[in-house]
Amino acid sequence: MKKNIFKPRSIAIIGASEKRKKLGYQVLKNIIDGGYKGKIYPVNINPKQKKILGLKSYTSVLKIPGKIDAAVFLIPSTFVASALEECGKKKVKLAVVISAGFKEIGDKGIGLEKEILKIGKKYKTKILGPNCLGYIDTSINLNASFAPSYPKKGSIAVVSQSGAICTAILDWASKSNVGFSKFFSLGNKSDITEIDLFSYLSKDEETDVIISYLENIAEGKEFRNIATKTSIKKPLIILKAGVSEKGAAAISSHTGSLAGSDQAVTALFKQSGVIRANSLEDMFDWAESFSTLKKPLGNKVAIITNAGGPGVMTTDAIEQTKLELANLDEETIKKLKKVLPPSANTHNPIDIIGDADAIRYKKSLDIIEKDKNVDSILLLLTPQTSTQIKETAKLILKKIKTSEKTIVPIFMGGKKVNTGIDIFEKNSKGVFEYPERAVKALEKISFCQSCEMGIRKIYPPKKIRVSPDTKYKVKNILQSSDKLIAGSPADFILNKYKIPIVKSAFAKNKKEASIFSKKIGFPVVFKIDSPDIIHKSDVGGVVVGIKNEKDSGKAYDAIIKNVRKSKPRAKINGVIIYEMISGGMDFYIGAKRDPQYGPMIGFGLGGIYVEILKDVSFRLAPLSEFDIEKMLGELRSTKIIEGARGKKALYKKGIIDTLIKISNLMINHPEIKELDINPLKVFEDRVIALDNRFILE
Amino acid sequence: MKKNIFKPRSIAIIGASEKRKKLGYQVLKNIIDGGYKGKIYPVNINPKQKKILGLKSYTSVLKIPGKIDAAVFLIPSTFVASALEECGKKKVKLAVVISAGFKEIGDKGIGLEKEILKIGKKYKTKILGPNCLGYIDTSINLNASFAPSYPKKGSIAVVSQSGAICTAILDWASKSNVGFSKFFSLGNKSDITEIDLFSYLSKDEETDVIISYLENIAEGKEFRNIATKTSIKKPLIILKAGVSEKGAAAISSHTGSLAGSDQAVTALFKQSGVIRANSLEDMFDWAESFSTLKKPLGNKVAIITNAGGPGVMTTDAIEQTKLELANLDEETIKKLKKVLPPSANTHNPIDIIGDADAIRYKKSLDIIEKDKNVDSILLLLTPQTSTQIKETAKLILKKIKTSEKTIVPIFMGGKKVNTGIDIFEKNSKGVFEYPERAVKALEKISFCQSCEMGIRKIYPPKKIRVSPDTKYKVKNILQSSDKLIAGSPADFILNKYKIPIVKSAFAKNKKEASIFSKKIGFPVVFKIDSPDIIHKSDVGGVVVGIKNEKDSGKAYDAIIKNVRKSKPRAKINGVIIYEMISGGMDFYIGAKRDPQYGPMIGFGLGGIYVEILKDVSFRLAPLSEFDIEKMLGELRSTKIIEGARGKKALYKKGIIDTLIKISNLMINHPEIKELDINPLKVFEDRVIALDNRFILE
Repeated sequence: MKKNIFKPRSIAIIGASEKRKKLGYQVLKNIIDGGYKGKIYPVNINPKQKKILGLKSYTSVLKIPGKIDAAVFLIPSTFVASALEECGKKKVKLAVVISAGFKEIGDKGIGLEKEILKIGKKYKTKILGPNCLGYIDTSINLNASFAPSYPKKGSIAVVSQSGAICTAILDWASKSNVGFSKFFSLGNKSDITEIDLFSYLSKDEETDVIISYLENIAEGKEFRNIATKTSIKKPLIILKAGVSEKGAAAISSHTGSLAGSDQAVTALFKQSGVIRANSLEDMFDWAESFSTLKKPLGNKVAIITNAGGPGVMTTDAIEQTKLELANLDEETIKKLKKVLPPSANTHNPIDIIGDADAIRYKKSLDIIEKDKNVDSILLLLTPQTSTQIKETAKLILKKIKTSEKTIVPIFMGGKKVNTGIDIFEKNSKGVFEYPERAVKALEKISFCQSCEMGIRKIYPPKKIRVSPDTKYKVKNILQSSDKLIAGSPADFILNKYKIPIVKSAFAKNKKEASIFSKKIGFPVVFKIDSPDIIHKSDVGGVVVGIKNEKDSGKAYDAIIKNVRKSKPRAKINGVIIYEMISGGMDFYIGAKRDPQYGPMIGFGLGGIYVEILKDVSFRLAPLSEFDIEKMLGELRSTKIIEGARGKKALYKKGIIDTLIKISNLMINHPEIKELDINPLKVFEDRVIALDNRFILE
Repeated sequence: MKKNIFKPRSIAIIGASEKRKKLGYQVLKNIIDGGYKGKIYPVNINPKQKKILGLKSYTSVLKIPGKIDAAVFLIPSTFVASALEECGKKKVKLAVVISAGFKEIGDKGIGLEKEILKIGKKYKTKILGPNCLGYIDTSINLNASFAPSYPKKGSIAVVSQSGAICTAILDWASKSNVGFSKFFSLGNKSDITEIDLFSYLSKDEETDVIISYLENIAEGKEFRNIATKTSIKKPLIILKAGVSEKGAAAISSHTGSLAGSDQAVTALFKQSGVIRANSLEDMFDWAESFSTLKKPLGNKVAIITNAGGPGVMTTDAIEQTKLELANLDEETIKKLKKVLPPSANTHNPIDIIGDADAIRYKKSLDIIEKDKNVDSILLLLTPQTSTQIKETAKLILKKIKTSEKTIVPIFMGGKKVNTGIDIFEKNSKGVFEYPERAVKALEKISFCQSCEMGIRKIYPPKKIRVSPDTKYKVKNILQSSDKLIAGSPADFILNKYKIPIVKSAFAKNKKEASIFSKKIGFPVVFKIDSPDIIHKSDVGGVVVGIKNEKDSGKAYDAIIKNVRKSKPRAKINGVIIYEMISGGMDFYIGAKRDPQYGPMIGFGLGGIYVEILKDVSFRLAPLSEFDIEKMLGELRSTKIIEGARGKKALYKKGIIDTLIKISNLMINHPEIKELDINPLKVFEDRVIALDNRFILE
């Protein structure tokens, strides 16, 4: 997408109208009222309509004398294709199709949407929409939308798949005095998607923060690539709706698109540095914080409060995050004691008590901001009798502007404190009414996802070398198998990828049995190898716990004798020898190919109750070692790996290696739909994939 | 506490002042301005002060001619005792001690607080505070506090341990137009506690909802009793601060009281029907919902929205609660189709699309409210171009007033939608800006905790009969033991409480060994019984897997022979026979005596990683069967008990019985500090406490 595509020097409004109730009127009026400096051309098929809103009207874009960079479509869907064809001929670069009546209405609309997409491709005209609200670029005062409010300039960009969410965000913004750089309504995202826009906005100098409401994600792989690149540069906050099954059903009924499984989305966001908001409220809080608060240099927080209770509540909230209460320097405490009344609490949370006036707030702030143990300051105010709300807000505001520390004001209450809140909002500085929300937002801005994304760059997904022969052999098995692969062929596949499995050998006679048993290492297990016998134990075809060569000979004879007796006609090849596994902890590795996001790998506590205990974390392939470290960090059972209850640590490297191999296996062989290793036995010095199965597409 | 204690017919303000900055001025002014109809007596020690704020001033309460029901104290702490003594003589029933300088300042203050408490007891004068904000009773227009705002009349009562939280609540209320019945600031709660007030408010006809901010809970047992009785009658919403360790530390530094362990508080609240709020925001939302919304008759929710996106978000939020999306009646869908445009979605969530005007909202509401499958309706509005915000609000408001269904308006946005929000607030009807918060509140009001509390009445804590002999024997062991009890004496205690332990018997010769083995049931284990042998296995003193009488004889001989050979001088008593336990699932029972709340019982998945998996739920003793059902319901591993993965269900009754017995054991024997059964082996038909230990005080 070209850099200047959203900054047209001229714009045509196809379907412009004089009728106030029509969108063709509202959009044209929005463009004029917004103060757009480029050329504006109303287009209306009616030749009698000479002028619209004071501007000369044309019956077709082809009749417009000058060059046209962008066109907004407000005509019925059935007429869009032909008008777009004309735009193509006129070399229009951007078509903003606000008109509805496409994919979202079913078969007929799907056809129309395909048609305009074809025309767009032919003429290299990019399409925003159809079925969208339009877009806004405050830097050129362009409001090419029918949004009922126009935002002030700011550094937040919005990308929304719902027009209504756009209007709600704009309405919230005009109440809270929050500014925006860009505003995009994606509509059916037939051509321009969130991926194009994230890529565009990551390079946009007017944008510091990107917030986005999405109902589905079109291309998982490309999303991961672009979102990663974007989130290295600036915070990318996404509210992804359709988390629940019923929510996903509601989406398909209204946009006709498939919602991906939420677990995969969670993994995708984590791996690409996306900050996931679970409500509009969170999204607003965080966007405002990222755009108005200074980024803290660490996670140590000081609390200044004029009341104990709120201080305790804030401390509670901090403990639920990765933030920490700062230990104040001795010097700081000394200085505080000098300026605060004797009943004040000079330890963090610092209680400057109920009669604190603005000056006392300022004095405390002056001292705390100089403490090298403090990265950010939560400043709480409750409206008590002698509280100077406005004056305090003004002094804090000054501090916020000059301080090197992050200062977050929290004014608790409603009516009275609003006089203070207004002061912050008018000056575009973040302010909160509730400590819990302030703490949540501070946590988000304190933990630099871009640093983490830097680490990702150092530890990219790990590709292992797999010989063509291995690939060929595995492919062969996969293609010649039924839907389910278990037992030896499953082991064979894992073994080809150098994942440790139980050692085994085939022995066709007693002598071989003895030699191979020794080679595998005692104790071993013998099982009869016969194509005619399914239930081996029932015919005496299994002997466990063979401890030495002598026993091995005995066991061989016994098995052959037993089987001959029970099934005289069975063909006997010999015995298969397995090493005997005892001890070790049961873990689980799973993989599932998500139709949208590709292979998703799970790791966690194994055994028979893996689904009940649900101590499993997920990431999308390809995995990096960094991803795996993060996966392990999310598990309760990570303590077992580290060596819980006085036990030695387990073989973490083996777990990481195995997960990397599984990630490669899933990527190399798209035939595999699901994979299940349960248990993966983990010891102090090795891992073994004990019970393995594949489900094919 | 007497019923009319907070409705005095006359009130003295001790420390009333003409100086505007003094609390003595502010409180007196608040009382006068509030419109209190009783007699008001300013008291000021200065005889020159003839009148204060136009009222005759007295130098002492004793000088006041008439009766005095209540007195407010605003004088320095050192003078409170003598003034209180005078009040006592004057038969004042209630002393509201706003003055600070008591327990919260340390040793000196503790003495003063004890002194006033003694005087209060002597004269039967109840004390609110000291170190509090005062109290408000809107029914008699009494504002006996220095709160800077006075609330309007309403049905919410507030009990707060923090004065600042009181002011924040009042300020929020005046912004949101929320009304209150009573407002109590507890201060140091030297005499009147939350328990007294809950008890009082549960019977108060002017109060429908109680909200409370608490930092500590004084008497766990009495709290449970009163809170249970209160929550049967009306919702009791508590925000308990000091959840985290650091939060608790902050509390003790500022109120000098001990915070209880949060796990115990969680259990206590669950068992007494308290609705726990985790933030002021939640507390406000829920209080307003309980007091303004109709109580739904079930959990089936319909969503009406003018935009798809918010509908999806709301559905997502519902899925995270116990609420369910209603399946609309066929008839409803037919009717909706008649009134809605073709592109509307007539399935739940019902999308009446972006151009919906007020009439379309009303028509949809009319239809949905008649659907018998619907208990409550979430009505979403986003501010789109043709949205009639005010008109829609007015029509919804009418519906809310007349409908039998619960209707919850959610107006998403900020500035524009505020014109609608104002209409609801002015009419004291709940309204939300965010769907997630509306859903959370609707869940709270949909699940009738008073019903649940009714069940609690039917299933009270279960007391089992324990013979005096048993009590005596157990007590004996406990008193003669060291700090730790494990092995046989621990088994003995449990056995005395009829908790199944491993069967065992002592046999002094081969014949007895054979007889007792048979009685216990094969397979069995023999262990040598000798006071001189500690490591029994090392001397061949253990034989496992004894399958029949013949083997039992052999095993006896072998053990005796082995031991004689290894330790010729050891005294041999015989062997101890144990039943052999194999199979079964490992569960865990723990008990811990909380210093404030008494014995807390935990149950969950057992084994060596109990602390890592943390699938354990807690309740306070005495337990009822209902409590235990709830405990099991909170566990992930409850599925194992019910029979997961095609396995048979485990012996739930045995688990319940054992927990009831442990609950009784902990109550009967305060010497036990902690108890640990891990594992409790659970089979399909029985349970066995396998490894048991006690820690004593």
